[in-house]
Amino acid sequence: MKRIGLLTSGGDCQGLNAALHGVAKALYEYYDKDVELYGLRDGYRGLIEGDYRLMNREDFSGILCLGGTILGTSRQPFKLMRVVDENSVDKVKAMKATYKKLKLDCLVILGGNGTHKTANLLREEGLNVVTMPKTIDNDLWGTDKTFGFQSAVNIATNVLDCIHTTATSHGRVFIVELMGHKAGWLTLEAGIAGGADIILIPEIPYENKYIIRAIEKRNAAGKRFSILAVAEGAISKEDSLLTKKELKAKLANRKYPSISYQLAEELQTALGQEVRVTVPGHFQRGGSPCPFDRTLATRLGAAAAQLVINKNYGNMVALRGTDIVPVPLGEVAGKLKVVPKDSDIVQAARQIGVSFGDC
Amino acid sequence: MKRIGLLTSGGDCQGLNAALHGVAKALYEYYDKDVELYGLRDGYRGLIEGDYRLMNREDFSGILCLGGTILGTSRQPFKLMRVVDENSVDKVKAMKATYKKLKLDCLVILGGNGTHKTANLLREEGLNVVTMPKTIDNDLWGTDKTFGFQSAVNIATNVLDCIHTTATSHGRVFIVELMGHKAGWLTLEAGIAGGADIILIPEIPYENKYIIRAIEKRNAAGKRFSILAVAEGAISKEDSLLTKKELKAKLANRKYPSISYQLAEELQTALGQEVRVTVPGHFQRGGSPCPFDRTLATRLGAAAAQLVINKNYGNMVALRGTDIVPVPLGEVAGKLKVVPKDSDIVQAARQIGVSFGDC
Amino acid sequence: MKRIGLLTSGGDCQGLNAALHGVAKALYEYYDKDVELYGLRDGYRGLIEGDYRLMNREDFSGILCLGGTILGTSRQPFKLMRVVDENSVDKVKAMKATYKKLKLDCLVILGGNGTHKTANLLREEGLNVVTMPKTIDNDLWGTDKTFGFQSAVNIATNVLDCIHTTATSHGRVFIVELMGHKAGWLTLEAGIAGGADIILIPEIPYENKYIIRAIEKRNAAGKRFSILAVAEGAISKEDSLLTKKELKAKLANRKYPSISYQLAEELQTALGQEVRVTVPGHFQRGGSPCPFDRTLATRLGAAAAQLVINKNYGNMVALRGTDIVPVPLGEVAGKLKVVPKDSDIVQAARQIGVSFGDC
Amino acid sequence: MKRIGLLTSGGDCQGLNAALHGVAKALYEYYDKDVELYGLRDGYRGLIEGDYRLMNREDFSGILCLGGTILGTSRQPFKLMRVVDENSVDKVKAMKATYKKLKLDCLVILGGNGTHKTANLLREEGLNVVTMPKTIDNDLWGTDKTFGFQSAVNIATNVLDCIHTTATSHGRVFIVELMGHKAGWLTLEAGIAGGADIILIPEIPYENKYIIRAIEKRNAAGKRFSILAVAEGAISKEDSLLTKKELKAKLANRKYPSISYQLAEELQTALGQEVRVTVPGHFQRGGSPCPFDRTLATRLGAAAAQLVINKNYGNMVALRGTDIVPVPLGEVAGKLKVVPKDSDIVQAARQIGVSFGDC
Repeated sequence: MKRIGLLTSGGDCQGLNAALHGVAKALYEYYDKDVELYGLRDGYRGLIEGDYRLMNREDFSGILCLGGTILGTSRQPFKLMRVVDENSVDKVKAMKATYKKLKLDCLVILGGNGTHKTANLLREEGLNVVTMPKTIDNDLWGTDKTFGFQSAVNIATNVLDCIHTTATSHGRVFIVELMGHKAGWLTLEAGIAGGADIILIPEIPYENKYIIRAIEKRNAAGKRFSILAVAEGAISKEDSLLTKKELKAKLANRKYPSISYQLAEELQTALGQEVRVTVPGHFQRGGSPCPFDRTLATRLGAAAAQLVINKNYGNMVALRGTDIVPVPLGEVAGKLKVVPKDSDIVQAARQIGVSFGDC
Repeated sequence: MKRIGLLTSGGDCQGLNAALHGVAKALYEYYDKDVELYGLRDGYRGLIEGDYRLMNREDFSGILCLGGTILGTSRQPFKLMRVVDENSVDKVKAMKATYKKLKLDCLVILGGNGTHKTANLLREEGLNVVTMPKTIDNDLWGTDKTFGFQSAVNIATNVLDCIHTTATSHGRVFIVELMGHKAGWLTLEAGIAGGADIILIPEIPYENKYIIRAIEKRNAAGKRFSILAVAEGAISKEDSLLTKKELKAKLANRKYPSISYQLAEELQTALGQEVRVTVPGHFQRGGSPCPFDRTLATRLGAAAAQLVINKNYGNMVALRGTDIVPVPLGEVAGKLKVVPKDSDIVQAARQIGVSFGDC
Repeated sequence: MKRIGLLTSGGDCQGLNAALHGVAKALYEYYDKDVELYGLRDGYRGLIEGDYRLMNREDFSGILCLGGTILGTSRQPFKLMRVVDENSVDKVKAMKATYKKLKLDCLVILGGNGTHKTANLLREEGLNVVTMPKTIDNDLWGTDKTFGFQSAVNIATNVLDCIHTTATSHGRVFIVELMGHKAGWLTLEAGIAGGADIILIPEIPYENKYIIRAIEKRNAAGKRFSILAVAEGAISKEDSLLTKKELKAKLANRKYPSISYQLAEELQTALGQEVRVTVPGHFQRGGSPCPFDRTLATRLGAAAAQLVINKNYGNMVALRGTDIVPVPLGEVAGKLKVVPKDSDIVQAARQIGVSFGDC
Repeated sequence: MKRIGLLTSGGDCQGLNAALHGVAKALYEYYDKDVELYGLRDGYRGLIEGDYRLMNREDFSGILCLGGTILGTSRQPFKLMRVVDENSVDKVKAMKATYKKLKLDCLVILGGNGTHKTANLLREEGLNVVTMPKTIDNDLWGTDKTFGFQSAVNIATNVLDCIHTTATSHGRVFIVELMGHKAGWLTLEAGIAGGADIILIPEIPYENKYIIRAIEKRNAAGKRFSILAVAEGAISKEDSLLTKKELKAKLANRKYPSISYQLAEELQTALGQEVRVTVPGHFQRGGSPCPFDRTLATRLGAAAAQLVINKNYGNMVALRGTDIVPVPLGEVAGKLKVVPKDSDIVQAARQIGVSFGDC
């Protein structure tokens, strides 16, 4: 009897259930009755606290297009330290104890960057783990795409499409603030797909003067409106030169809930033109996964099952070109995949006249 | 030669172009070459400043499903007084002058509450006007439904659907703040369609204790999450007892950008549970009109054309049951249609266990 | 202890689960633990064969936006006679026996025209019934709208929107065949919302010469394409003059799977222009209900529960204007609500230049 | 002054306008006023007949999310031979004459397989051409993805989703016939994303006995329904062994409009269970491109502009992994990219229990 644990960790996103559907169906198909799947509740919390349940085939039926995760999720444990009165060693011990108690052959872990750091730690501690890359940020090193990303791009693009019609009608400047603290992939792809005129991402610090110049150029060309797609982690050149500590202090004193509101006031003052802000927020990570993410998550799920079957542990399954391949966890953990400034997608946006606020 | 003016005024919404498409096509079909349609730019501003253009058939082709308004729009003029250095008499004079200069037989005006006050004023000043009811708020007296409303409900419901999956996965309380300063129709219908557990609208002042009770009841029943659909004009019972002046002073000092953020903090403190806020904002009024709005706008457009043809001026076209009927402008102007506390839709929501925070 | 039966009968549509959600939640809220809900499987089949299950609150959780029906459905029993070797009296007897065996206080029945005939028969036989109007055809007498209708209109309109872009690009004539054997509501509303140039519905027999004239008029005006929205029950004037028997014989010999293919060939021959056919089929009745249908179904469900609570049996709940009202089953059963030829919606379509192929 | 011709050829698809938007904006941005773009009408027809127009910047404004092609399209010329009374040499001559007359520096051609054959012929005849890969079939050799494909997958998946709810409610077998005569990519990806139980594609001939076995296995497991995603070019093993001529003769005598109807009858007879067919048809290639296709088309457009700028003619722009690269036309023309039987995506589908009807 094979015994496999399943857990989803970190912020939820579209495709988690599709991925669980893929890995579970593939395991049941292969092992038939010789496998037991254990669902750990709310990510690593369930592993730490020994909160789990034995799943059955029916649990995975009809969840391919369901948003969220049937297992529940929570922020990963090393961030929880502030809340829970434990030290990190104890948590790792607790996770190993649950793993042992359940007599697991392997733990299949779905998550983003933080999750992968912990997964790699567990691997180093001797547990058998196989991981799957999920995040709407697409900032996980080692895979071309993470599931959740395309679904979030679709939602964000839809918001930009809708803002277009109201911006045109009223002749306004609109800022749409999209998710992405450290990586601008979501804002970049949605910005291009949604026809944003200006795209601000963490990787390319902006200066107000260039943004203003871009808007004025549009005004001069008779365009009634301008739309900015702004990542929540977008940063001005000035701020990008601060130390981490200085920046933190500055942000703590900011009177606005986020970068967009401050930028809106600055632009409004400079331009004498109405500037509005829209922040779709968590809406971006919810709802049914798009077909691209369903297929990707299914393929990754089937590949993860194959790694389990082959006892090829310690790997993340990844998309590379048109193939699904294993990537050693040690190569992935702790690395962030940000947008290269000279990537062809940034280049393409510049070619069609999009401003990144940097020149 | 008939000469008809067209203008769209107030905040834009879905269906404006569908309505223009309806009225214009019906007029061209009826009069063929014996009609000239003049588009006033940006609502009453175009009428005041004499900013217009002669339209042609092609201008109205392919706009049935286009969001926004091809004529542009602006806030209606009596709010502009603060900005523009003019007195209201002059503006009315200016509008009459443009009407005269263009030798219009009639002015077809699309707008919401403010727009209809002005339209009625113009009627009283002797101009021939026919109006069409647009607003995502559905708060225009005299019609069962305004176009734009259903499209906004669809978007708001979609946001609630998406938030559901993330709320379930994380076990959180979520507040979704929807448009509606004075009337709660949008929040009410989207709240029911999106399965909100608590619905707060301006018409039914809430008390925190009842909201908390509703959430705790859900927690006790083992539900992991609760979702609140909150109109931006929702008001606590305490605040509802203040004079207008007192309330204004209080709101001016509020440290939060809107009611939802304040409520979130209060609930989080009281419940010891994470409470998140999402504010879709202008997104709600943009994008392609839904089929319901397209059909409604087309029917209203054709009916408005018929009123023009019959010289039956001074009316708004309205939906009553399954019929389109004319309603005298004098009956409509200045009246707000709010949600009756005992309407069967509120009643239905209460029956299925939705809390309005009032008991 | 109250004991209520629930059944959904006839072709499935969007909103059935939302309606079940509404009626069940309202009954549980009102009676709390003093009510038992019995789900009859697959419509009247379950009532005839005594195939049912005791439902619980969880069964109705999360189904508000789920397409289809959790109870299953089947064609209503008097059509089943061909398949099942029984006579109709026996079936009625069997249904009464199940009702008695379950000691039901009332049976809540969701269905369309056929379903309502049977429901009324059961009422006449002494059973307590309350019904809810579902059908994508909107052809149920006594209610302004049935749930399912608007969702189907949305899908059909989306098909027309998509066909528009391909028709424009290729300069083709396209026929989109939509559901509706006897009533043209779906084709009419989707046709208007989707910008169809020609709309053919069962209520208005067409002649090819008028269709050809309409297309040629568009060609002459430089339009590259024409789109026809055709109800599957659309009928030529010639065929409309046949007796039922003659028509049946003629249709039996038709070499085409449906009216659209025949019309396409006739038009292609007459016009010398490429004519394509698209038949979305069952796609129109599937998927998640639109917000309009969810709210309507919820309101109807709550109203049906109220009728049960008040022992106000023998009624269908209906939408009239902005209200939900009870309508005696005897007034509803056996009546078809077709599109009046002079209804303002037909009139509006004609005004904007849509051809119904009749002049 | 640079003079560039633009043409879109073959069946239309989503993203053509986004691609035109990309290439045109990039050319205008680079050359500013030193470039003239000529739009050839209806694909190669416009080039043959000298039917074109000088475009301007405004023509490309707002078309990013517009379905279809603003240039019009037609089947490519060597199929037109039957219609137009010319021989192929003459057509090539005519195309070269138009190219010369317009003094073009380069011709940018958007199309699929047939289009690329002709484009390569023109290259061999000495014309400067740059091409972009469009097709919902994704069967163009040399690129990982074509634009149009993902949008079509989204529509097809949506149909499968909707059919799921009706299939569940009624307990039926449903066949959804999707586009794809020679390649099964669309059916494969939509089938996986839409949770199809059986997927039939041209690349993997099926036998009825295996399909029946798969359905009976589901029935035995208590599933009420089965859904087949069937490419229009799916072929039985028996038919796959015929010569091309034999097959053509057999298909000519087939009494059904397509493979699905025949299969439905065969399965219904074998299973004694209701089998329904849905054929979404041209609906799959219409409507607004999805964000994935908009971004891809924009990147390809910008890359094509760069090839023009660099005089790097004779190439198709292609997606390879995360990069956009040029591929020599000679390597692309005449090659079909079909689904490899052992591709990991087929493998993944098999792993989760999907049947391809071949074992």
